[in-house]
Amino acid sequence: MLVAYVQTAPGLGMVARNLDEAYSLIERVRDADLVVLPELFHSGYAVRSRDEAVELSVPFDKMSEPLVMCLDACRAFAMNIIGGFLERDDSGKLYNSAWLVGPDGIFARYRKIHLFDIEKDIFEAGTELSPIVRIGPMKRAPSQAARVAMQVCFDWIFPETWGKLAWGTGDDPRPTGAQIIAHPANLVIPDACPRAMRARAMENRIFIITAGRVGSDPGSDGELEFRAGSQVVAPDGTILSIGPEDSPGCDIVEINPAWADDKFVTPRNHVLRERFGASDGDEPS
Amino acid sequence: MLVAYVQTAPGLGMVARNLDEAYSLIERVRDADLVVLPELFHSGYAVRSRDEAVELSVPFDKMSEPLVMCLDACRAFAMNIIGGFLERDDSGKLYNSAWLVGPDGIFARYRKIHLFDIEKDIFEAGTELSPIVRIGPMKRAPSQAARVAMQVCFDWIFPETWGKLAWGTGDDPRPTGAQIIAHPANLVIPDACPRAMRARAMENRIFIITAGRVGSDPGSDGELEFRAGSQVVAPDGTILSIGPEDSPGCDIVEINPAWADDKFVTPRNHVLRERFGASDGDEPS
Repeated sequence: MLVAYVQTAPGLGMVARNLDEAYSLIERVRDADLVVLPELFHSGYAVRSRDEAVELSVPFDKMSEPLVMCLDACRAFAMNIIGGFLERDDSGKLYNSAWLVGPDGIFARYRKIHLFDIEKDIFEAGTELSPIVRIGPMKRAPSQAARVAMQVCFDWIFPETWGKLAWGTGDDPRPTGAQIIAHPANLVIPDACPRAMRARAMENRIFIITAGRVGSDPGSDGELEFRAGSQVVAPDGTILSIGPEDSPGCDIVEINPAWADDKFVTPRNHVLRERFGASDGDEPS
Repeated sequence: MLVAYVQTAPGLGMVARNLDEAYSLIERVRDADLVVLPELFHSGYAVRSRDEAVELSVPFDKMSEPLVMCLDACRAFAMNIIGGFLERDDSGKLYNSAWLVGPDGIFARYRKIHLFDIEKDIFEAGTELSPIVRIGPMKRAPSQAARVAMQVCFDWIFPETWGKLAWGTGDDPRPTGAQIIAHPANLVIPDACPRAMRARAMENRIFIITAGRVGSDPGSDGELEFRAGSQVVAPDGTILSIGPEDSPGCDIVEINPAWADDKFVTPRNHVLRERFGASDGDEPS
């Protein structure tokens, strides 16, 4: 299958411009089966008030400009898109969420569990792990499917949620965990997350697709600069693609999601069974 | 305080030679308060049979050549040493262990929990987390102490044990977790553990001192090559020192262990309380 990240330079509150930018980068990776967009891709990040956040928020399950853009791209290019969006629920609560949209509609949503710094003033924290969603068939490989889950930005520093998503329903004869974790992000700590993602990939033996952003937002304490960080990492920690450091960009990478079903780092060490399972990881079942 | 790693090139079964090599490198970092030696520093790694392992094994708590060497160095240089050793218990079982030895004797032992590949044919797996041991005063800073714990080699890929050692007895007003994790290793997977250690340091906000080895052992499936990997990593993931890639070596680094008590990656995000604690990490107590 072909996967891609789209790294943008959104303007805070400039929704139409941000959707145009994202769409034109998506067009450049139109062959992809799965495209990952940054966190809060339509709105920008550093909202200056809750009112501004409410104004930029969209519901998860009703039509909105960001959703229409994603659905249009999914239908035009027969692809799936995971992107971060500013969610408002029926009661008016806000979440820093991600959705998985495909040609047939919205498949899933994840609400960021680990809110970063002043996000705690705006958003409610999610309380549920990402669903693990099967996508496919792939355009060039009609027999191929993949199990995909989501994490958002600062979730990167907490190994437990990644481990649970990779483990799935557990010590099953057929693997059920996510083969790919899509990771919309707006990274601000220099030189941190992209390095940690190699450990997350290795310790779970999964693919990770991070989509970051560049540019800056006018924050309440001065300009907030974003550190890109888009990349695709393989289950052995190899970086398959890195996005540009200070400009928008995108890239498309061919992966075989089945690689992520092989959790044996040696013939005697199943990294997830030794971590979560009853057995010691010896002997594939 | 001053910490150091010693990276050796042991010969399999050449105990006297290995102890001499280790001692002469320890002399070069004699100012250190804590020196970390590789996994199985006295014996070499790839024993060809259980009999050979038994022959090279030593008890934890009785005098042996490797222990005498460590005690001599600790007394001569007023230092603490953590090193990996091939342990035989009273009933004849073998463990891939590490000890913490100081001028006043043996302080602690940890038996490797996660055995790598064919180690499972030789060793019993440890079942208990490393103790967290207070060492100090330091030579140049008599008021300073540090809380130290141990992990051995392949433990690197499993985030849970590192997290528990960093967390200590939990959500305590006074921090109780390890500030420094010493990590004797004999690394064989290229380009893997040293990268992951940066994530382990960041996600736990601790110092990590890995001591690896170079050279090769004659394994049952051909020569087994070791990949060095010695380094000191700071709580923000910065690498403070890296050992040479293909020769023995050592280095000494000044650190402030109190840095590891600050678990706030932002003023609103306590990485361990958000991971293990009841509260959401907001507001230092």
